[in-house]
Amino acid sequence: MSSFAPNKADDVAIATIRTLAVDAVAKANSGHPGAPLGMAPVAHVLFSRFINANPKNSKWFNRDRFVLSNGHACALQYVLLHLLGYQLSIDDLKAFRQLGSKTPGHPEAGIEVTTGPLGQGFANGVGLAIAQAHLGAVYNKDGFDLINNFTYVFTGDGCLMEGVASEAASLAGHLQLGNLIVVYDDNHISIDGDTAVAFTENVEQRFLAYGWQVLHVDNGDSDLASIYSAIAEARKEKGKPTIIRLRTTIGFGSREEGTHGVHGSPLKADDIVSLKTKFGFAPDQSFQVPQAAYDYYAEFGKRGAALETEWNSLLASYGQKYPNEHAELTRRISGELPAGWEKALPIYKPTDAAVASRKLSEIALTKLAPVIPDLLGGSADLTGSNLTKVKGSVDFQPPSTGLGTYAGTYIRYGVREHAMGAIANGLAAYGGIIPYVATFLNFVSYASGAVRLSALSNHQVIWVATHDSIGLGEDGPTHQPVETAIALRATPNVAFWRPADGNETSAAYLVALKSNKTPSILSLSRQNLPNLEGSTVEKAARGGYVLHEEDNEDLTIVSSGSEVSIAVEAANKLKAEGIKTRVVSLPCWLTFDQQDEEYRLSVLRSGAPILSLEALSTAGWQKYSHEQYGLPAWGASGPYLKVYEKFGITGSNIAKVGKQVVDFYKGKSVVSPLVKAIHL
Amino acid sequence: MSSFAPNKADDVAIATIRTLAVDAVAKANSGHPGAPLGMAPVAHVLFSRFINANPKNSKWFNRDRFVLSNGHACALQYVLLHLLGYQLSIDDLKAFRQLGSKTPGHPEAGIEVTTGPLGQGFANGVGLAIAQAHLGAVYNKDGFDLINNFTYVFTGDGCLMEGVASEAASLAGHLQLGNLIVVYDDNHISIDGDTAVAFTENVEQRFLAYGWQVLHVDNGDSDLASIYSAIAEARKEKGKPTIIRLRTTIGFGSREEGTHGVHGSPLKADDIVSLKTKFGFAPDQSFQVPQAAYDYYAEFGKRGAALETEWNSLLASYGQKYPNEHAELTRRISGELPAGWEKALPIYKPTDAAVASRKLSEIALTKLAPVIPDLLGGSADLTGSNLTKVKGSVDFQPPSTGLGTYAGTYIRYGVREHAMGAIANGLAAYGGIIPYVATFLNFVSYASGAVRLSALSNHQVIWVATHDSIGLGEDGPTHQPVETAIALRATPNVAFWRPADGNETSAAYLVALKSNKTPSILSLSRQNLPNLEGSTVEKAARGGYVLHEEDNEDLTIVSSGSEVSIAVEAANKLKAEGIKTRVVSLPCWLTFDQQDEEYRLSVLRSGAPILSLEALSTAGWQKYSHEQYGLPAWGASGPYLKVYEKFGITGSNIAKVGKQVVDFYKGKSVVSPLVKAIHL
Ligand SMILES: [Ca+2]
Ligand SMILES: [Ca+2]
Repeated sequence: MSSFAPNKADDVAIATIRTLAVDAVAKANSGHPGAPLGMAPVAHVLFSRFINANPKNSKWFNRDRFVLSNGHACALQYVLLHLLGYQLSIDDLKAFRQLGSKTPGHPEAGIEVTTGPLGQGFANGVGLAIAQAHLGAVYNKDGFDLINNFTYVFTGDGCLMEGVASEAASLAGHLQLGNLIVVYDDNHISIDGDTAVAFTENVEQRFLAYGWQVLHVDNGDSDLASIYSAIAEARKEKGKPTIIRLRTTIGFGSREEGTHGVHGSPLKADDIVSLKTKFGFAPDQSFQVPQAAYDYYAEFGKRGAALETEWNSLLASYGQKYPNEHAELTRRISGELPAGWEKALPIYKPTDAAVASRKLSEIALTKLAPVIPDLLGGSADLTGSNLTKVKGSVDFQPPSTGLGTYAGTYIRYGVREHAMGAIANGLAAYGGIIPYVATFLNFVSYASGAVRLSALSNHQVIWVATHDSIGLGEDGPTHQPVETAIALRATPNVAFWRPADGNETSAAYLVALKSNKTPSILSLSRQNLPNLEGSTVEKAARGGYVLHEEDNEDLTIVSSGSEVSIAVEAANKLKAEGIKTRVVSLPCWLTFDQQDEEYRLSVLRSGAPILSLEALSTAGWQKYSHEQYGLPAWGASGPYLKVYEKFGITGSNIAKVGKQVVDFYKGKSVVSPLVKAIHL
Repeated sequence: MSSFAPNKADDVAIATIRTLAVDAVAKANSGHPGAPLGMAPVAHVLFSRFINANPKNSKWFNRDRFVLSNGHACALQYVLLHLLGYQLSIDDLKAFRQLGSKTPGHPEAGIEVTTGPLGQGFANGVGLAIAQAHLGAVYNKDGFDLINNFTYVFTGDGCLMEGVASEAASLAGHLQLGNLIVVYDDNHISIDGDTAVAFTENVEQRFLAYGWQVLHVDNGDSDLASIYSAIAEARKEKGKPTIIRLRTTIGFGSREEGTHGVHGSPLKADDIVSLKTKFGFAPDQSFQVPQAAYDYYAEFGKRGAALETEWNSLLASYGQKYPNEHAELTRRISGELPAGWEKALPIYKPTDAAVASRKLSEIALTKLAPVIPDLLGGSADLTGSNLTKVKGSVDFQPPSTGLGTYAGTYIRYGVREHAMGAIANGLAAYGGIIPYVATFLNFVSYASGAVRLSALSNHQVIWVATHDSIGLGEDGPTHQPVETAIALRATPNVAFWRPADGNETSAAYLVALKSNKTPSILSLSRQNLPNLEGSTVEKAARGGYVLHEEDNEDLTIVSSGSEVSIAVEAANKLKAEGIKTRVVSLPCWLTFDQQDEEYRLSVLRSGAPILSLEALSTAGWQKYSHEQYGLPAWGASGPYLKVYEKFGITGSNIAKVGKQVVDFYKGKSVVSPLVKAIHL
């Protein structure tokens, strides 16, 4: 692979990519032809000469990873998958952007991650490269270079303008990720027109500042040899990630090439005729694939299949020499957790001391980490506050820094919440790793773009989100979440856990670790919480349960997290006044909603009013309660007990509120809020 | 001001800043002494030698703006405000981080913006500098350099790691903002310890890549002359923003100086004794201010008062020479809108053609822009999709680019949603400007950190958030909002508008422009919407109203935005079957909640079930309805009418659902969901 060997099929292959992408967009009458036309040559060189992957087993573990960060260019990706022999037919291409197709408007699955929201794929790529570096360091042995794949990322101007990509690039440089290769499609065009209107920074210099190797290709439209050399050079650099600035013409071959007119709308009919003619294709036919193109790309499949076979025998001999490592690695690849891991979860009694749930999380992680080596933790520069670093764990760092090794299990993300979330998606997508990441709950919202994609892409990422309410006290309303919980609860497939004590924290970890298709956010307190009478791991793992039962109750208080003990206090006060009050703890709505109806109706039952209590916005609690108590607006800066008092979230005030509720509903027939005509 | 003239009070003034900050943190037993100790010298030099401001009128329009982006260092800011003679007493300092004090844990008001969430202040500073450049270009005349202030920003490592700051820095370089000066407190420490663990990029080179002037001071702890020279040089450069890398020792003077131990916790008692002794202060006394320090800083007040007086006479003579400009400028400074501006709002009849609400927004902006010059628009590289550029408007660009002028009213933000939001906060904070910004609704979440601070700080920022549901069609679930609406509705003081037609769009602009303490998000459709029978600007301006009335109804459907016309269609079908159905349009929850109870109960009245309909998550709608219809999870990629059909959001299916609801509640007494025991 030292220098480019042209093949007579190169031109026809590239032309095929270009015309298929144009046809797919035209048939859908929707989509982005510009970037596929511009990036077809680099895509062709990369896949025909460099990428190691097996179309017949797209999950082969040591495959090279490919991320199309400019996901709007996905016609390019779909066309390649088809030509290379993946399970994507010409009919799938014809169904581009249609309901239920394999080829939606932005890549939702496949190779390798969901992209479209700009900047995410770039950061996912950094995560994929970290995963390779980490697993390679842990499992590779002399003569057994088992995990050594490259991660290739295509990116456009849009991604590079996004802060999430800047954060990820800075960290990737620090981490010296030599197997990460980014191709920057420098076409001088974004949606608003020439990039001169807003993006005039020196991108090469910026990446040099981050510690990257920077290469460039002046003619990405047709200079295949230079493209080849740049990628080859990138692969040689083992101590730095590489970005290749590839100058291309957006919409190459169209009459409107080089303008933003060709970015996001189908080409006009006569333009398609002219383009096909230019590339030697029949102007009146669509979805043409010359046999020469299929034949040439069939080599890719053969090479990939052979590589996988070879790798499988390497893995087998590794198993003979290193049976323990082999067993662990193959288990991790399979996505199964080690047998009996649940036994490591701590269990608490009500007599145990009150502890902050962020500390309970630390205790759980300390027990789990030795049992589940898959865990790869980190924090956005709040380690001492999030309590996420297990004692004795080593930092994931380039060995040359002297601060850790690539086998280390703790990532120092820096103050980069958004990149952290997107990198964690990449770690999860790689396989063999369960990432957990941490910041204050309020700053999970800095990463909401990444959390949303976690959920949409079924990535198992665990967020340790501490300082989760006014209970953080003095830092004040700039740091006190109000709307964050409902934002996350309303996101499909996000398990938002707000545990009330030790057993509930263990339950949150139990379910989060079992849920391998779901991101989980653990919302944890700064302040100490008592261990509750009536909580068990098993009950809490159902997402909601009766913590304190009463027959023929006058009231139920439903609560979560740090307010559950306040609800219990209120219930005790009410009982003393003859008002029978049940207390329901509802640590995770998503999990509770998945329980059978009979169970849910037994927890939030008809007969008496239900009052919700949480030191956050009440939005959304109407689903589970008749009446809601919470913050009317922002929190306040002060010692936390005083802040709770200011907002009336104390046992005695909630008892008073509870009485109001009981009086209000007296004599009325009260039906559970779960009893509904419509179930979506 | 050509070179530094030492004053004998310099040392005592700096020592006073340091000891007061230490005392405030110690008394609160909470806070961050490290950065105030390290940045006291630069703060002293900046305020004593350079900053033009009048403590007796903190709102003087041409004052220099100061932003403490590392807001956790706010003890420094509070101490300065006190010493400089602002309305902040020594008792206020003693009440640091206490409930109801003027000195909360992070700056919530005052000079100039709310900070704490990292990176925001940096981007706010870019907004403040844009505002100065813009208003200066519009109103300054020969001999009348009315608006020429500097914007100074202090920032730490944390802010510079955040993507929002990277985005803002890149744009600031492009915009050549010569009056922006950033001081970077390079103390090599962040919460996780030495910045070597995560932040090893070359910051100077990065800012050079952005097109900034980069200066540095090697000894920020005591080399006042070099600090002075760097700031003076920064002020001279008129074609670029400047960053001064200031090497300091965090916690200077403490026994733990230079370590992260001194970042976020009070100094120990014996350390305070030692520090005070070192600085020549009585070790056993707190909150000491030598008269020499007060006297020296009194000069600042005198200079500021004189500058304002001088400026006021300049403004008066400007008024004589340019009466129209003077009238407009003073009106803008006052925050009043021009008389009669509301008349510009378009009004629609049901017979008017169906139009997408993003287009209705464009029509409104086109009418409003000539009447309200305060509007300064922009989009995050989606101008042609957001439809936010008023025809004929000029770009806000450095004249040297040939692409526009600083007097231009349209900002090309690039693909930088988070910075756009934070810059808009700076524009609003400056005064005289009403910023509107735009992206797809789904990507407002990239900027949620900034939107939250908009709301907390009462900034009037208008978001034009188009493509607001599955109605965007082919782009698919990566771009289709589900949870975004409830996240914004649950944020205090955010007016989230989802108008259903032309009159409602005009109502949204009417209320948004009148609400000068509230950010507004206008959630707008990509697809065409019919103009509705029964909608008026006046009714919609109440946030919710009865669009279609029926006596003794069997059902009310409450809806918003693009689904209201579907609700009307369903109501018509139901009527044909003898089921009397009211339709309520609820474009803005915040505004509706502010109406009197009688009105609200007349709109969402008792007697018949209320069914909500929205093509988003149903979360939160339980507050206004008994039953909810919406998306069960993610949207889908496909032509939009097919996507609506897939999810049953069509007139005929909603009629079916409505019947189910009516049957379910038949014979039951139905009370309005607004009738509650508890009102927070
Ligand atoms: Ca581009
Ligand atoms: Ca620092």
